[in-house]
Amino acid sequence: MHEKCGVVGISLEDRDAARPLYYSLYALQHRGQESAGIVTHDGFQQHSHVEMGLVGDAFGPSDLESLNGSHGIGHVRYPTAGSVNSSCAQPFSVSFKSGSLGLSHNGNLVNADEIGDELADLGHAFTSDGDTEVIAHDLARNLLEEDLVRAVKRTMNRIHGSYSLTIMHDETVLGVRDPEGNRPLCIGELEDGYVLASESAAIDTLDGELIRDVKPGELVVLHADGTGYDTYQLVEPENTAHCFFEHVYFARPDSTIDESLVYEVRRELGRKLWEESGVESDVVLPVPDSGRAFASGYAEAAQNDGSDIEFAEGLMKNRYVGRTFIMPTQDERERAVRLKLNPIKSTIEGKSVTIIDDSIVRGTTSTQLIQLLKDAGADEVHVRIGAPPIVAPCYMGIDMASRDELIAGNQSADEIRDEIEADSLSYLSIDAIAETLETSRTDLCLGCVTGEYPYDIDGEATDRDVVRPEIGTQSSPADD
Amino acid sequence: MHEKCGVVGISLEDRDAARPLYYSLYALQHRGQESAGIVTHDGFQQHSHVEMGLVGDAFGPSDLESLNGSHGIGHVRYPTAGSVNSSCAQPFSVSFKSGSLGLSHNGNLVNADEIGDELADLGHAFTSDGDTEVIAHDLARNLLEEDLVRAVKRTMNRIHGSYSLTIMHDETVLGVRDPEGNRPLCIGELEDGYVLASESAAIDTLDGELIRDVKPGELVVLHADGTGYDTYQLVEPENTAHCFFEHVYFARPDSTIDESLVYEVRRELGRKLWEESGVESDVVLPVPDSGRAFASGYAEAAQNDGSDIEFAEGLMKNRYVGRTFIMPTQDERERAVRLKLNPIKSTIEGKSVTIIDDSIVRGTTSTQLIQLLKDAGADEVHVRIGAPPIVAPCYMGIDMASRDELIAGNQSADEIRDEIEADSLSYLSIDAIAETLETSRTDLCLGCVTGEYPYDIDGEATDRDVVRPEIGTQSSPADD
Amino acid sequence: MHEKCGVVGISLEDRDAARPLYYSLYALQHRGQESAGIVTHDGFQQHSHVEMGLVGDAFGPSDLESLNGSHGIGHVRYPTAGSVNSSCAQPFSVSFKSGSLGLSHNGNLVNADEIGDELADLGHAFTSDGDTEVIAHDLARNLLEEDLVRAVKRTMNRIHGSYSLTIMHDETVLGVRDPEGNRPLCIGELEDGYVLASESAAIDTLDGELIRDVKPGELVVLHADGTGYDTYQLVEPENTAHCFFEHVYFARPDSTIDESLVYEVRRELGRKLWEESGVESDVVLPVPDSGRAFASGYAEAAQNDGSDIEFAEGLMKNRYVGRTFIMPTQDERERAVRLKLNPIKSTIEGKSVTIIDDSIVRGTTSTQLIQLLKDAGADEVHVRIGAPPIVAPCYMGIDMASRDELIAGNQSADEIRDEIEADSLSYLSIDAIAETLETSRTDLCLGCVTGEYPYDIDGEATDRDVVRPEIGTQSSPADD
Amino acid sequence: MHEKCGVVGISLEDRDAARPLYYSLYALQHRGQESAGIVTHDGFQQHSHVEMGLVGDAFGPSDLESLNGSHGIGHVRYPTAGSVNSSCAQPFSVSFKSGSLGLSHNGNLVNADEIGDELADLGHAFTSDGDTEVIAHDLARNLLEEDLVRAVKRTMNRIHGSYSLTIMHDETVLGVRDPEGNRPLCIGELEDGYVLASESAAIDTLDGELIRDVKPGELVVLHADGTGYDTYQLVEPENTAHCFFEHVYFARPDSTIDESLVYEVRRELGRKLWEESGVESDVVLPVPDSGRAFASGYAEAAQNDGSDIEFAEGLMKNRYVGRTFIMPTQDERERAVRLKLNPIKSTIEGKSVTIIDDSIVRGTTSTQLIQLLKDAGADEVHVRIGAPPIVAPCYMGIDMASRDELIAGNQSADEIRDEIEADSLSYLSIDAIAETLETSRTDLCLGCVTGEYPYDIDGEATDRDVVRPEIGTQSSPADD
Repeated sequence: MHEKCGVVGISLEDRDAARPLYYSLYALQHRGQESAGIVTHDGFQQHSHVEMGLVGDAFGPSDLESLNGSHGIGHVRYPTAGSVNSSCAQPFSVSFKSGSLGLSHNGNLVNADEIGDELADLGHAFTSDGDTEVIAHDLARNLLEEDLVRAVKRTMNRIHGSYSLTIMHDETVLGVRDPEGNRPLCIGELEDGYVLASESAAIDTLDGELIRDVKPGELVVLHADGTGYDTYQLVEPENTAHCFFEHVYFARPDSTIDESLVYEVRRELGRKLWEESGVESDVVLPVPDSGRAFASGYAEAAQNDGSDIEFAEGLMKNRYVGRTFIMPTQDERERAVRLKLNPIKSTIEGKSVTIIDDSIVRGTTSTQLIQLLKDAGADEVHVRIGAPPIVAPCYMGIDMASRDELIAGNQSADEIRDEIEADSLSYLSIDAIAETLETSRTDLCLGCVTGEYPYDIDGEATDRDVVRPEIGTQSSPADD
Repeated sequence: MHEKCGVVGISLEDRDAARPLYYSLYALQHRGQESAGIVTHDGFQQHSHVEMGLVGDAFGPSDLESLNGSHGIGHVRYPTAGSVNSSCAQPFSVSFKSGSLGLSHNGNLVNADEIGDELADLGHAFTSDGDTEVIAHDLARNLLEEDLVRAVKRTMNRIHGSYSLTIMHDETVLGVRDPEGNRPLCIGELEDGYVLASESAAIDTLDGELIRDVKPGELVVLHADGTGYDTYQLVEPENTAHCFFEHVYFARPDSTIDESLVYEVRRELGRKLWEESGVESDVVLPVPDSGRAFASGYAEAAQNDGSDIEFAEGLMKNRYVGRTFIMPTQDERERAVRLKLNPIKSTIEGKSVTIIDDSIVRGTTSTQLIQLLKDAGADEVHVRIGAPPIVAPCYMGIDMASRDELIAGNQSADEIRDEIEADSLSYLSIDAIAETLETSRTDLCLGCVTGEYPYDIDGEATDRDVVRPEIGTQSSPADD
Repeated sequence: MHEKCGVVGISLEDRDAARPLYYSLYALQHRGQESAGIVTHDGFQQHSHVEMGLVGDAFGPSDLESLNGSHGIGHVRYPTAGSVNSSCAQPFSVSFKSGSLGLSHNGNLVNADEIGDELADLGHAFTSDGDTEVIAHDLARNLLEEDLVRAVKRTMNRIHGSYSLTIMHDETVLGVRDPEGNRPLCIGELEDGYVLASESAAIDTLDGELIRDVKPGELVVLHADGTGYDTYQLVEPENTAHCFFEHVYFARPDSTIDESLVYEVRRELGRKLWEESGVESDVVLPVPDSGRAFASGYAEAAQNDGSDIEFAEGLMKNRYVGRTFIMPTQDERERAVRLKLNPIKSTIEGKSVTIIDDSIVRGTTSTQLIQLLKDAGADEVHVRIGAPPIVAPCYMGIDMASRDELIAGNQSADEIRDEIEADSLSYLSIDAIAETLETSRTDLCLGCVTGEYPYDIDGEATDRDVVRPEIGTQSSPADD
Repeated sequence: MHEKCGVVGISLEDRDAARPLYYSLYALQHRGQESAGIVTHDGFQQHSHVEMGLVGDAFGPSDLESLNGSHGIGHVRYPTAGSVNSSCAQPFSVSFKSGSLGLSHNGNLVNADEIGDELADLGHAFTSDGDTEVIAHDLARNLLEEDLVRAVKRTMNRIHGSYSLTIMHDETVLGVRDPEGNRPLCIGELEDGYVLASESAAIDTLDGELIRDVKPGELVVLHADGTGYDTYQLVEPENTAHCFFEHVYFARPDSTIDESLVYEVRRELGRKLWEESGVESDVVLPVPDSGRAFASGYAEAAQNDGSDIEFAEGLMKNRYVGRTFIMPTQDERERAVRLKLNPIKSTIEGKSVTIIDDSIVRGTTSTQLIQLLKDAGADEVHVRIGAPPIVAPCYMGIDMASRDELIAGNQSADEIRDEIEADSLSYLSIDAIAETLETSRTDLCLGCVTGEYPYDIDGEATDRDVVRPEIGTQSSPADD
């Protein structure tokens, strides 16, 4: 159950939260297109609307109108391969002894099954097989005996993995980020309230001000009157495990995550890419849209070095190729890439070109792209990638591919170059990533590029000796 | 949360149960048009498809195909006024420590809130506010400590109210009927398996044979190999509380419920109606479709008495007036009845007519109908009703109306006659009902016609001293 | 291109016609469920909304609102086997030199291809292959040279076949019935206007009064101010060719067609059926719904003759088996009839039964029904049909079946009885039909029961020597 | 009835044309999102599927399968303000005396009403009020008397305005471009056939080779066996009237139109924009996506001039803001631009910025954008536009705005600068456009930037003395 998702939580003084939540989800739509949902609380009861599809399709005007209350949370969910299951759409909401709970989750627990089994031993029954329901049940159970902050702390001490959560307990909106800070979460201020969101672009959309990132292991509780918030450092992590792929690929360029603006990080990675493995060619072309910032930095560094390389667009992306597309038949399959990307001949024909992309996963698209460029008359095609090779799967919420589907899973860069028929191929080093993010390697999750993970995952190596809290309800050191 | 619903459960030797479940739900569609659902089990896992709408719209061929397994349960749900909430659609399914549970419920608990609170004290969290989830959680909890039969018994000793349930525990299909036998449930045999259903017409549809009604307080467990079933009389009721309105209005005429064929009951009630309050007139007309059997019995008894009264159709029902109908504007409103029922003038004009209906709820339709008949030239319009006046609401699962909406709530028959402008009006006696059903009054639920209920309902009188089992998890005498 | 359809036209003093048209189409929905459409005119321009599906699905509130104007026509269309083509949905509307035209057509031309070819020679281009477009183009062409009445007359002299049309020329609403009066059309009065409709039940629905049938060969022109209408007997037919099947099967029981109330015709046919071929049995059962009136007359005549035969319901129809139904697989196929009709055992078991139906087309359903009744315990099953055997196809707008699909196409009643395994089988005589309708045989279209048609149809016999008007634009005697 | 549209026509040796047509329409989707349609011919009959919505929504796999035949045409249509009318969706298809016709039209006739009236005088009736039906009827009429080429010529001599047409006469696919060449149309070669399309990108998508633009006044007839094509220069224009806005805004950057690659034209216009009105600032930012090529040329020219200006992305576009978006309420309205474009602060804060856009229409978005940039910390905001000011409406098929909605309709650049609160504003000169397109001003349609049109438009000035062919059916000089 791997998920890339976006979460949001809003508490306002007076105004209904439904519309700001709706616009926030629009701003986070790139983080999940499978389902969208909003749960609000009007002081007396919860209102919920969760549907499959894009934000714009999932909500009609009457849906927004029915979502009363100045407090609410929202969620967009990523289409995972295979089953599209409406029972996993979020926010997940339940009522229990001490009120109602709503949860939006971005991330992936590594011990959800264990905790689920423990709760089942205590009689809990589950309507889905998702992580989120497990967290909700655990939290609900803790709330029978503890106040809100202690209950969240107890749950945090039990769950292990990556999570950024927005939670609504009755009308109180909370935000929690896992102790490793794997997935992003930030807090912002509006004219009449506060907002928690996966990315700062959602805050911008509401004309709000980004205050700061939620810290790893921190709980933020928005005041129910919309006038402030309290914070609690519930767990003090020794090391963080920020996902560097948020900056490389997943987040919006205009978002600031863990104090670094994504667009600038990508441009700097592009500059480093030139420094590490720059190659002279007539022109450097981004693979749109995500390669654009890398390519711009790469070209700038090259020109500063005195290179004559030209920065141009060479591939036109068709914005309309969407979900309901009828795929070409087998013998038209090589044409598929052309429906999405068409070469602009003037910048390619008779030239040596360098294309800049953020990653190579399976390699299929790269192979087709290079063929396309050669068909369009490129003399040479050099490939530069703004990240290290992906050699292992992600267990923290990004559905990349299984290990043997990864082209770099068991091949060197040279072997890959030959397979995709490029004239040269270079990846960026891990050090360049750490340097650019101004973070030590031990504070990043590098699992997908090293195969060593900051979490205990069955059958995988761990990259450090992290002391994990004991799991159990009897005694929880963090409660002291 | 009042519901009229239909439930079904099927266990087959080999064949997939999805299609027989689908056809059964079609046969029970009159019991609920809001949502339809099927849950099956293939020996390894549950499959579920639940959707809003009619059976024919809720399931496509691929949905049926995905519902693997020879065992399953199904549900159709009634559109209740106000909120149409997809979270209440059934069957409700959960996974818990000892496997998976699916539940289909017809009826209404009177102590769901109490039990829900108790479960919440134990840490349970609920995703809906329906009775069915409460039963599911209670049963799941009991299954942690008991075998299936004892777990069901313990749950039956706790829940109080009306219920006919089909349950699926992993691949085992069960049927349970409340100790008062308020809602119907019967068991039938197929060539290659067994079926539990709200009405025998569902069994007919599958070319099966009705075996018998499930007894009040009885549990039926279908063998997972489709070759037989076991029964357990878990609770021995002193009195039953069969809903007589199933025979009068709700069930299909071709169903046999508690050993009485509905069509024959209605004809006999029609005969008694003539005996009790027959009035000479030129013609007797049924209000279609439900008044037809009453009118036929009424006319037969009259003719046997030597009356010249003619039995004819006088009102034509438009079969196409459905859910998506645009209602007339206020000043066209009196026309509304005409879109549904149009007089056949030849049987009305210049004649004294008697119309036979099964009930009068609010009286609005009756008033419009009588006006319509007079406009069509009727000299006199006599109204005869095949049931006693409805004076109080139903708490057992039929959403009639609130007490002050009921025209008979605080008016005599004569006052009602004047209000609806009939030339005469008579209802059937309660004794006629009891006699026809060959049941003593103390074994019927007569709440809606007496205001005294066989269950303890806040603010309502009870019609007897029923000894209820103690509610509590610590000790349950029925377990002994 | 055979079609059963319903047409309507309304002209009001002041009020918008859209809602009355909508309710009229609801009342005529039984005549066509494939598509529904309304075209109105507000004095300045036409407004049109035509969609596939039932009336309730085809129109939303905003659609009705957009259909401005006090004048309009409507149409419901029958689902013909095979292609469901939105280009054939009606009303058909065009603009031409002298304004705009809208047409709703019920019937079937026999010379549409000829006229279409002539118009094509003159340069006309067609967007569909329907009769209606041919009539519209011909009429538009005539309107270039003639006034409205003469133009209609000229078109009537050219087209040959069965047609009841409602036409809107700018804001003038017309009704035309073919010279043989094959399809019904009547005129009614509302409080504030006039209405033309296929059946009088549509007029009833609007609280209007039926004035009379439009006469064969007559044109009715509603005044644009809603205060009256003019009539023109454009063609004087020697003989009519009323379709007797409208009374037997197709029309609503509460409609009056050609001065006979359908319900009473069916009861009288039932009485004649007893007289001609009554058989003693314990019980007489209608095949619902259309057999009910026949059976009621049959039982009445029997009882008047001193028979002890009982009239009862023996088959319960499932009202929900609709279009989106997933059909049983091959080996479940014999079960199909059971999903639609379920026996009520008490009136069948151990009894000799007579079932009354309006027709036997292919015989498949009859065979299944008889089997069903025998399975339910009937000792004997006698079949009586309220119409003569159907031996030939209909070319006049009813899509019955091709000749070799008709069970009576080349078999005697005795052979059919054996095939369907009935204990006895009788049809009604043609004379009984003519007598009941108080019409001579030569004034009825009896094509489907005699194989001789009142129209010249390629490869079929004609039942009389009708002098047809010459076809041609040069001289048209009717213009004189 | 102004329309921006895309047209395509394909003739293949053997393979079904439906899928290539479908992928072509995908490639042309940017030219129209309101409706999509394909008409094919299989040698015996036409098949048609036209629906409202995007290509991906309008066609399912079964739709493509039903579109048999190796020959076909397709169309995408632009959403025009106000009425969305399914009767105007294209291709338009009719059958007439000499076979069947299908038409796809991009452009706008100026004398459609005249010709429609003439055809109406001859008896023609129209089902829509679109240009396309007029052309179809005229062509069908001419085909009664002439062969295909002469018939097209006669029609071209009658219709006046802008049009690129793909036509299918039975199985013959044609392409025609108006004598002024206002809208684009080109021809390409596939492995097994030929294709006509509005833009060369559609040909690329099919792995085809662009052969050349169809010449103004030229007819191209694809051979029905897919092996070649014939061309006919039916009208010899003195001057062309190419729409320069195709290159500036409407076409895809990767398309070649009238021998100029759109991307290169835009970059060159950007260079000229620097030359004409370059302004020193810290950074130059494109307004995505259409401003990107202009900005890249502008920055390049600046840097070549020794400027230190940096080229960067400063505005992030939300790709998901679509049709079903719920608009902000009045007091949230200023936020609307933020949902679509969010500033990337690092490239804006504390800097003087220049933004490059392709046009300013009403000015609302520009005003909001500048405010957005200042809120994000820009010290100065300079605006440079890659085209001349739009001072007058377009009558040739692009729905810009009415004259008084145009911000440049009656204001100077300085006044506009003040209104939108920019620090400076410059437009590109008309001469720069003509020079870049290597076309004289008299061969361009400059109506929207000069108010003088190359066509006779009621109430508008004409920019030249064009000798127009006489309109009339009696004698047409081009027929000689």
